[in-house]
Amino acid sequence: MSNPFFTNSGPLKISEIFKILKIELKIEENLVVKDVQDLYNANKDCITFFHSKKYNQEAKKTKASYCITTQNLKDYLPKNCTPIVVENVLISTSLVTQKFYPNSIEDEYDASAVDIKDTTLKDVVTAGKNVLIGDNVKIGENCLIGHNSIIERNVQIGDNCKIGSNTILRNSVIKDNVTILDNCVIGKKGFGFFPSRNKNLRFPHIGIVIINENSEIGCGSTIDRGSLSNTEIGKNTFLDNQIHIAHNVKIGENTIIAGQVGIAGSSIIGNNVKIGGQAGISGHLRVGNNVEIGGGSGVIKDIPDNSKVMGYPAKSIREFLKDNR
Amino acid sequence: MSNPFFTNSGPLKISEIFKILKIELKIEENLVVKDVQDLYNANKDCITFFHSKKYNQEAKKTKASYCITTQNLKDYLPKNCTPIVVENVLISTSLVTQKFYPNSIEDEYDASAVDIKDTTLKDVVTAGKNVLIGDNVKIGENCLIGHNSIIERNVQIGDNCKIGSNTILRNSVIKDNVTILDNCVIGKKGFGFFPSRNKNLRFPHIGIVIINENSEIGCGSTIDRGSLSNTEIGKNTFLDNQIHIAHNVKIGENTIIAGQVGIAGSSIIGNNVKIGGQAGISGHLRVGNNVEIGGGSGVIKDIPDNSKVMGYPAKSIREFLKDNR
Amino acid sequence: MSNPFFTNSGPLKISEIFKILKIELKIEENLVVKDVQDLYNANKDCITFFHSKKYNQEAKKTKASYCITTQNLKDYLPKNCTPIVVENVLISTSLVTQKFYPNSIEDEYDASAVDIKDTTLKDVVTAGKNVLIGDNVKIGENCLIGHNSIIERNVQIGDNCKIGSNTILRNSVIKDNVTILDNCVIGKKGFGFFPSRNKNLRFPHIGIVIINENSEIGCGSTIDRGSLSNTEIGKNTFLDNQIHIAHNVKIGENTIIAGQVGIAGSSIIGNNVKIGGQAGISGHLRVGNNVEIGGGSGVIKDIPDNSKVMGYPAKSIREFLKDNR
Repeated sequence: MSNPFFTNSGPLKISEIFKILKIELKIEENLVVKDVQDLYNANKDCITFFHSKKYNQEAKKTKASYCITTQNLKDYLPKNCTPIVVENVLISTSLVTQKFYPNSIEDEYDASAVDIKDTTLKDVVTAGKNVLIGDNVKIGENCLIGHNSIIERNVQIGDNCKIGSNTILRNSVIKDNVTILDNCVIGKKGFGFFPSRNKNLRFPHIGIVIINENSEIGCGSTIDRGSLSNTEIGKNTFLDNQIHIAHNVKIGENTIIAGQVGIAGSSIIGNNVKIGGQAGISGHLRVGNNVEIGGGSGVIKDIPDNSKVMGYPAKSIREFLKDNR
Repeated sequence: MSNPFFTNSGPLKISEIFKILKIELKIEENLVVKDVQDLYNANKDCITFFHSKKYNQEAKKTKASYCITTQNLKDYLPKNCTPIVVENVLISTSLVTQKFYPNSIEDEYDASAVDIKDTTLKDVVTAGKNVLIGDNVKIGENCLIGHNSIIERNVQIGDNCKIGSNTILRNSVIKDNVTILDNCVIGKKGFGFFPSRNKNLRFPHIGIVIINENSEIGCGSTIDRGSLSNTEIGKNTFLDNQIHIAHNVKIGENTIIAGQVGIAGSSIIGNNVKIGGQAGISGHLRVGNNVEIGGGSGVIKDIPDNSKVMGYPAKSIREFLKDNR
Repeated sequence: MSNPFFTNSGPLKISEIFKILKIELKIEENLVVKDVQDLYNANKDCITFFHSKKYNQEAKKTKASYCITTQNLKDYLPKNCTPIVVENVLISTSLVTQKFYPNSIEDEYDASAVDIKDTTLKDVVTAGKNVLIGDNVKIGENCLIGHNSIIERNVQIGDNCKIGSNTILRNSVIKDNVTILDNCVIGKKGFGFFPSRNKNLRFPHIGIVIINENSEIGCGSTIDRGSLSNTEIGKNTFLDNQIHIAHNVKIGENTIIAGQVGIAGSSIIGNNVKIGGQAGISGHLRVGNNVEIGGGSGVIKDIPDNSKVMGYPAKSIREFLKDNR
């Protein structure tokens, strides 16, 4: 993931990172890292993190030079990757991420936004009344933006896109031929923080939202941007109204999701999936390709390719119908 | 259903329809049809469609002269109605509907909308700041419209109605004494399309939304307009916040629906029904009069009059409570 | 509860109240009451109401001088409290409340709201475009308000608060360091009314919404104000997107509620509670401290302190997992 939106204040010296994490220095003074990335996206200039055995396959193959992890997990890491053992991986990763991306914690409204009529985009975009555009927004040819919508700074929109009215976009890349209907909020920080008495500690969200070609997002939907990876909607995937997609979720191509569905953080949904209305998918799950999930289902474990499931907790639809005859 | 909003480009010659459907011509050249309608609303000048055995009662009584249907279903049709046998009824119906109503596919924002202060309605309506009104909007006496709301072209609003702030209405007829609260989107096209790799094919939505007298719609709700029939909310029916009503749904009178309920496409809900919070009703179902549905229920089959149901799948509340003692 | 927002037109003579309730007068002419309050908050100058055995503990201790109740319940009341026996407690209470607070029935948009640039708050608040502010709004230091948001009359906001874009606040008190994200509606009347053929009778909502220090409310959420008590969110409690909190709900401190959760009217949630996505809590329940409720659960009875529950209906998570192995 190259991050187009948040300014990286790196490189950081490893010694500086150790200081932030209150770890005693046992390594050479001048080593640096340029970025913080997840296990999969990290390269040799990066520091990464590994907090759950669930990700041991990604850990074994990471290219990162350093990894924030625990005593129990550190032996999964390859030789190229130096473990940095801490008590709480996510809090430590949060502290390091904030150091790289100090302005990724808060989600203040974009004060740079001005009426599109006062920008050069007025000649490119067909826009309704009171449309606001932030700094450094790029919009392709033949796009429509409805009344009162706000395209905050750095957003990129492709060709032939239709954005509805009262919709807010931030930290997002919208590819060609995408339709986003009314009253959506796309690209807000996710619901990620460390619970702490009196004042929770927010987790930085440096990921973005990517919506690929030909997709459609229904009215009143919310799609949160990722924390350390992106939230992504595949090509030609259609979402109905009032859907909530949490941070880091990845949805494949040609997938169809009916109204009021919710997908919790970091879950991965395959291609050609159909999800019925009001279904919920727990966090950190994998739903395979060609899966059908019945309306109202509650999915709490991984679903293999080509399955049809229903129920709460979701099981094979045959079993569900048999049990409920 | 007479459609007040979409321009009918008919009549069409039957020969032209056969050409669209790539069917060989076996009938007289000059026969015409004036409109496409569902089985129930079609008259002798209409073409209709029949795609599921579920609608065989309506099929037997249709007054349409032509019906797009399948080999298996065609024998349910009465003598007055000539079957047009196709592979996929809904795709064929979509093609014919688009020919009648070419501008019903897309849901672009209403570029005709201007500030109410620049219209003659400014003297009739008590309106907040930045209220936008499209072409040919009719609003009765003694109505209120809150800040930033958008009443798009062709909408009709009766007397004594209260529309909240940040709400969007399109393709809708609102009768007298109706209250619609903030942040609603009423009258958008439904979530109907034909899945197709790379680019789904949208279904035309020529139906409207009708909200009858004395009803109330809660904040953040979405009510989609119908595809070939209307979406309709009966008199004195109250909807709480964050409710989603899909296309073609019909809800009776004196019905009460609590927060976050979702009703999938084409279902019919009776009079005096009570639906608890977060319940979901699958598509193409009939829920009778005087039915009570417990909060959180998932209704996946028809519910007869005077029943009390709960659970997922919903069953008699007595059985639900016994099973869960 | 002292009510900062609705004007109390009391005191009322008891004889006048009896007339409203069509009860024959058997008491002294000149007795008065100054306010209507719930059982817990009423003092000796108040009239209260008692409609369900569920509240018998509160009834036994009420300090009110009069209580609207039924023949069956009246004997729970203490000696200091004179029962006023009626057929339907809630309808009678509604009539009395309307007499005290005649302007609490309807929720019309705030016509007093003007652009913040035309108010003295322009020098105090960092505000986006098209922000509207009603009469008598108080906002502390160092606050942000996003584009198109509406702060209606009488709202009080503390220091260091961040209000997103397209958000509407009314009848609310927001304490310091609170974050409210985009597209929320906070402080609307609850979904409380008396069903009646042809025209439901609305219940007055004289309660407010209180959001305490350090809390956060996610995008697209709705929090309704109370009817006769307040709706309250405790300190450092975080709500994710698309959450619905109904009237009179009280949520404790340090509680975490994931996306699309709904909490029905008058339920009380403890401190340090975790509620998973899409869970629903029925009305008039008590959820204890340190409770964990799994995603998708439907809670239909009280949950004691320190429990972990899941399922629909929710039961102990151990039992849920065993039953669904």
